[in-house]
Amino acid sequence: MRAVTFQGPRSVEVLGRAEPELQCHDDALIRVVASGICGSDLHIYHGRVPTARGFTLGHEYVGEVLAVGDAVRSVSVGERVLGTFATACGTCAGCRLGLYHHCHEARVFGLGPSGGSLPGTQAELALVPHADLTLRRAPDGLPDELALLAGDAMGTGYHAIAAAGIEPGETCAVVGLGPVGLCAATAAKAAGTAAVMAIDMVESRLEVARALGADVIHAGEEDALARVMDLTHGRGAHVTVEAVGSAGALETACRITRRGGTVSLVGVHVAPCRVDTGLIFRKGLRIVSGLANVVAHLDRVLAMMTAGVLDPGPIVTHELALADAPDAYEAFDRRETLKILLRP
Amino acid sequence: MRAVTFQGPRSVEVLGRAEPELQCHDDALIRVVASGICGSDLHIYHGRVPTARGFTLGHEYVGEVLAVGDAVRSVSVGERVLGTFATACGTCAGCRLGLYHHCHEARVFGLGPSGGSLPGTQAELALVPHADLTLRRAPDGLPDELALLAGDAMGTGYHAIAAAGIEPGETCAVVGLGPVGLCAATAAKAAGTAAVMAIDMVESRLEVARALGADVIHAGEEDALARVMDLTHGRGAHVTVEAVGSAGALETACRITRRGGTVSLVGVHVAPCRVDTGLIFRKGLRIVSGLANVVAHLDRVLAMMTAGVLDPGPIVTHELALADAPDAYEAFDRRETLKILLRP
Amino acid sequence: MRAVTFQGPRSVEVLGRAEPELQCHDDALIRVVASGICGSDLHIYHGRVPTARGFTLGHEYVGEVLAVGDAVRSVSVGERVLGTFATACGTCAGCRLGLYHHCHEARVFGLGPSGGSLPGTQAELALVPHADLTLRRAPDGLPDELALLAGDAMGTGYHAIAAAGIEPGETCAVVGLGPVGLCAATAAKAAGTAAVMAIDMVESRLEVARALGADVIHAGEEDALARVMDLTHGRGAHVTVEAVGSAGALETACRITRRGGTVSLVGVHVAPCRVDTGLIFRKGLRIVSGLANVVAHLDRVLAMMTAGVLDPGPIVTHELALADAPDAYEAFDRRETLKILLRP
Amino acid sequence: MRAVTFQGPRSVEVLGRAEPELQCHDDALIRVVASGICGSDLHIYHGRVPTARGFTLGHEYVGEVLAVGDAVRSVSVGERVLGTFATACGTCAGCRLGLYHHCHEARVFGLGPSGGSLPGTQAELALVPHADLTLRRAPDGLPDELALLAGDAMGTGYHAIAAAGIEPGETCAVVGLGPVGLCAATAAKAAGTAAVMAIDMVESRLEVARALGADVIHAGEEDALARVMDLTHGRGAHVTVEAVGSAGALETACRITRRGGTVSLVGVHVAPCRVDTGLIFRKGLRIVSGLANVVAHLDRVLAMMTAGVLDPGPIVTHELALADAPDAYEAFDRRETLKILLRP
Repeated sequence: MRAVTFQGPRSVEVLGRAEPELQCHDDALIRVVASGICGSDLHIYHGRVPTARGFTLGHEYVGEVLAVGDAVRSVSVGERVLGTFATACGTCAGCRLGLYHHCHEARVFGLGPSGGSLPGTQAELALVPHADLTLRRAPDGLPDELALLAGDAMGTGYHAIAAAGIEPGETCAVVGLGPVGLCAATAAKAAGTAAVMAIDMVESRLEVARALGADVIHAGEEDALARVMDLTHGRGAHVTVEAVGSAGALETACRITRRGGTVSLVGVHVAPCRVDTGLIFRKGLRIVSGLANVVAHLDRVLAMMTAGVLDPGPIVTHELALADAPDAYEAFDRRETLKILLRP
Repeated sequence: MRAVTFQGPRSVEVLGRAEPELQCHDDALIRVVASGICGSDLHIYHGRVPTARGFTLGHEYVGEVLAVGDAVRSVSVGERVLGTFATACGTCAGCRLGLYHHCHEARVFGLGPSGGSLPGTQAELALVPHADLTLRRAPDGLPDELALLAGDAMGTGYHAIAAAGIEPGETCAVVGLGPVGLCAATAAKAAGTAAVMAIDMVESRLEVARALGADVIHAGEEDALARVMDLTHGRGAHVTVEAVGSAGALETACRITRRGGTVSLVGVHVAPCRVDTGLIFRKGLRIVSGLANVVAHLDRVLAMMTAGVLDPGPIVTHELALADAPDAYEAFDRRETLKILLRP
Repeated sequence: MRAVTFQGPRSVEVLGRAEPELQCHDDALIRVVASGICGSDLHIYHGRVPTARGFTLGHEYVGEVLAVGDAVRSVSVGERVLGTFATACGTCAGCRLGLYHHCHEARVFGLGPSGGSLPGTQAELALVPHADLTLRRAPDGLPDELALLAGDAMGTGYHAIAAAGIEPGETCAVVGLGPVGLCAATAAKAAGTAAVMAIDMVESRLEVARALGADVIHAGEEDALARVMDLTHGRGAHVTVEAVGSAGALETACRITRRGGTVSLVGVHVAPCRVDTGLIFRKGLRIVSGLANVVAHLDRVLAMMTAGVLDPGPIVTHELALADAPDAYEAFDRRETLKILLRP
Repeated sequence: MRAVTFQGPRSVEVLGRAEPELQCHDDALIRVVASGICGSDLHIYHGRVPTARGFTLGHEYVGEVLAVGDAVRSVSVGERVLGTFATACGTCAGCRLGLYHHCHEARVFGLGPSGGSLPGTQAELALVPHADLTLRRAPDGLPDELALLAGDAMGTGYHAIAAAGIEPGETCAVVGLGPVGLCAATAAKAAGTAAVMAIDMVESRLEVARALGADVIHAGEEDALARVMDLTHGRGAHVTVEAVGSAGALETACRITRRGGTVSLVGVHVAPCRVDTGLIFRKGLRIVSGLANVVAHLDRVLAMMTAGVLDPGPIVTHELALADAPDAYEAFDRRETLKILLRP
């Protein structure tokens, strides 16, 4: 089968790979119908995450079930399914609390050794462990390009809001309008916020945020702090989603959040940075962070997408053939696109 | 001044009353601009709540501040204000936890002795104790008929949802589509639910629910349980708001709620009734009940109304002169109206 | 093998039964080392729960693993294990939220058809489905008689407190001092309550509650309401655990709970009863109910028992041979004992 | 009257000051019976907080009410009272949510301009604004030296645990064993944790922690991370309280906390520092921070102290005359003491 493989910093190649086979009772084998390129794939692409040369990338996907282990009960051969970016065993001490994102044996598709060396989904076929938790039947009528967001970008956007515990009538700011930031903005909007303030410096991304109903702030042309204060009666946002993963974005997030508010850190931080802990303490901020509990959120996210309450459609801007992956990565890296779908 | 007074079961009269005067440092005196008639007023009207003959009714109101005690800081003479149906002292053990609806010294406007004998707001003037907690400046642009809902029907509808802890993507059923039930339905819709199922037997009320975006169920013509199961993949609603206050409504609520779900009891129960505790236990239901913490919710409710996220406008169906109160009570009692405004 | 079997109302018999065998990949087969008799077994014993004649009873147990299916990873042959009273599949929509007590396919050991016809553990051998969730390795040093409480009575007592969301410094009352009530009392004490008030009419049970650190109230000799008010500065308990499952106990619980407080219903209700919903509404009570999420609680309960923070030791009053089960049921039914262990 | 005044870095002096007088309806005037020296006083003492020369220090206190404004209802002349370190207005948008520590008009006793220039309580008399929220009648039988901790060190220790949402059966580590850290350790112990691990490098402080029931770790002689892992089955603490306010303590806290755990930041941070946000993200940590909501916690803290569930007695190591304040500050600064009481 053909797969998108990592070949070194800023280099991916579509190559032939051995077809995966069922290994455990709860595995499923799927034919990938569409796979997405995610912002976190860029961390690998940039060489910041140790990954073996030749490793298959990707962790957003919709597929068709080709085979299942004999313990799999929730999906069947022939069904269209979508999945989560990471697996969960369902029985460790983390999972037993419903905290699947803290599964002691979690593996992330297409991330390399730090993700448990689980081959990615930007390929013709994919092996999916713990299928009963990792996969879900795709709701009829939900198009592939939306379905594949549920277990990754949209699930993470939902998590950014849910983990922050936002209440209807509160306000939300989002710093960084890549796909995850935009998904967080649309999730915040759906959750009954009185205002969603979306902050970035790329006009096309601000445009999508505006289409999703947010008040947009161009951080290169406006004073983001002043605008947020203006939109929140001088108090700041109740919740700020930091969807970049940089020291600067985190600092902005802390500044625009109100006293007693929450900063929800879904941008992937990989290294130490200088943080104004004095400001955090004085304001009594709360910070929530880390990967999303998409296994737990998935049913709710799908229910919202099916009902049209969440519509991340405008976030998917490009659809390409798997063979075009090298160009796709380049374009996404230049921020010329939002979500790109690859069709095998 | 003129005021709507209780004269006995099913009898109210508009009579002259002494003008109220400031008594405490934190009192405010307001000229009432509009007052509403609420479902709970009918409990008095029907003679089910002990109330002195001649007592002034009403607890939904918008007004203009005429005078304030010297400790009042948050509202000023001349401002348009709205208020909550009950007062809170702000300093007892209940209030000190932010549970203003459990204030040990709470008084309810227009309820009689059980509400602390605080004269109501269906009058030309009203004295408002603890004005800094009980009143709020009315947002510019928010019309009177919506503003007066914030501290009562809409605040209670918000509470019904908030107290139940509903999450975006869950489903909500509402049993009983009087103004509070409809407010709960619109609050549930705003909170990102995947479905809101509104149940009643009065066609005009179902019509309003439909306008607010709910799936409506005519309990007299359809099997409500079957419809709810159909709309929830056979599971039942995550949260059911019981907005009637009867044994039958409570039983329906318990039946249509899923295992582990929540019944939010905002319909005013005044007496014991037979309850299927076996069903409640088997399903592991959670029941939340009682008056709403509108003091705490008010800022969020107003933010949502101002932003247009909550629009209970369709609930206000009639506007009459204060002098027409007797007719208004009769019509409301016959369920011919939803919310009626009285203009002094 | 020999097993305690239901023979009709108030009649159990120890008979020979076929030895169970592994059926699924995630099953375990255990040799039962000790099994308990639980208050809910009495519902069957009294004939109030439909159960086939000859069905094996019991759901509290400690055992030794004899065999495991090839998907079982967390326990091994030869290990001493303890288990939960019910199974959870780990992958349904309920389990995926960590709500194992709302598993759509849950089965309860020894309960008959309404529990999924899973043979009980008052036997020499038991088959345990979904072993990775249902079983846990017994901590070294924790004696059998305490270990078998963790997944049932003690897990339920912990749940009664946890589901109520009690905060350190609040007060707790417990109505009904069978094993579960006493476990709730000791869990409440461990959770930092300022007072635990234990209510019953059996002196020996009050004695155990006193030993666990509770203030005891003999409901037959004292006015329970007056005593609770006296011990809570006239406010009532923040949380009341109803551990009986009767209309009277529920009414007492509602009366002694403070405004805005919580009634935690762990007594098994099986039928409708008259409830003072007016009182519940006026006080704004919250009611939580149903079977306990012992799968989720088990690690914490075991950590507390191992650390000596929870010590339900005084609750275990008798240890008998499996063959003595008929006498044991009779004695327990007469309330002459608290927890009885049966040793095969 | 005489008062402890700030005279510049590392210099305090006891001088005569004008007697305070009632200014507002809700003020109280108290005769100070005892006042404590707090770790946060050292920030002023070291010159790190801008404070006017001659300003009166101190914010922990027990006193007797000399006079009250005519709006004060909860305390009376002649009563023994204790108070919180900061005031809350009770009516701003922060207070209306019960978040008194986010009062928009909060003032801190004895902190200088950044605390609203409210003179401190290390004096013979003190003026207490918003007395109904700031003061509480001291429970009979609770000695002065414990009572004065309730509204500051012990209230903060309770908050450190409560804000982290620790559950009975979880584990807690405390980094830094000054009075607040020790109060957090005793609060964690009281809350039903399976283990409390107390970390410092001062032997006398470790000694007190041991007396409070904690497992102690001498960070200068042992590998704290290894010890915590050893005590938590290799997982790390569920909650770590950082009670120092330094980059190093925060880093230690993040390292010893388990995946998905919480760092509760009660050590006062005043400046930016380098933080391993990569570690925080990878582990999915949650950070809660800031001053404590002592107004809300006070009733519960007092209930626990009165019941003996919380006993911070061992933390109070010295009692001196007000006149000895200069020596007291020096000794506390050298970490030779824990809590020092000053008696006017």
